Amino acid sequence: MAEQTKTFDVIFEGTGTASGKMRNDIHVTWPMMKESFDLATDEGPFHGGDGTAPPPLALFTAALTGCLMTQIRAFAKRLKIDIGEVKVNARLHWKGDVDLDSGATPEDQARLLDAARKGCFIETTLAQGLTVGHRLRIGEAWQEA
Amino acid sequence: MAEQTKTFDVIFEGTGTASGKMRNDIHVTWPMMKESFDLATDEGPFHGGDGTAPPPLALFTAALTGCLMTQIRAFAKRLKIDIGEVKVNARLHWKGDVDLDSGATPEDQARLLDAARKGCFIETTLAQGLTVGHRLRIGEAWQEA
Repeated sequence: MAEQTKTFDVIFEGTGTASGKMRNDIHVTWPMMKESFDLATDEGPFHGGDGTAPPPLALFTAALTGCLMTQIRAFAKRLKIDIGEVKVNARLHWKGDVDLDSGATPEDQARLLDAARKGCFIETTLAQGLTVGHRLRIGEAWQEA
Repeated sequence: MAEQTKTFDVIFEGTGTASGKMRNDIHVTWPMMKESFDLATDEGPFHGGDGTAPPPLALFTAALTGCLMTQIRAFAKRLKIDIGEVKVNARLHWKGDVDLDSGATPEDQARLLDAARKGCFIETTLAQGLTVGHRLRIGEAWQEA
């Protein structure tokens, strides 16, 4: 069969509603597949939440880990590479800054959004661009891949 | 109080184990907070899975939406901006390429990983860098923010 390349679009939509102190209920839809998923995030007591759901960065870690694992299996099938058991260990490391001023004056909504987007590690990660490093264990040795 | 800036590290770790046809069980830990979360991803029947959990991109959508909402609330408190109800609508749009060759020859693990990482929308998104656009609804009108 001749090789063909076809471009496709993948669109996900999320609608988040604040519920509880720091909990967000997020309805995620994948219109093309007519699928939807009810997910939630929360923060632990240390960050003012009730710990009713994982924090956003936990979902992010699972998303990245799961996405790579899924692709490994999908491509193993397509490339006919026998892979046996698949196990992926991921370590995500963010560095943040917090300024400890205590008497900020009220500002407009735009300033709040600006602060929030800068405070959002996920958005900042997306904005900066990030190369994900990988290693493969070949026998007993780890090799950069 | 004088303003002070302090840098901190946030580290999440994920260990993914393949289970089921396309299901991945991902144990996520946040060592600093001594918290852990058991999450999972799967694909629907169309992509060879059993639909037992949301696909990775759904977790990613929830993570991004939830992270921004959490930061909006956290900064609203710190900046003393009254925000009332918070609702965020997110739309994530990826474009993919799939090549439809049918007779790929067996290759080594490195080639598989290379294909998988290129197939992983989340990793590709991270690598490219992505500016997230925002709009605020001020009264009835939407404004770019």
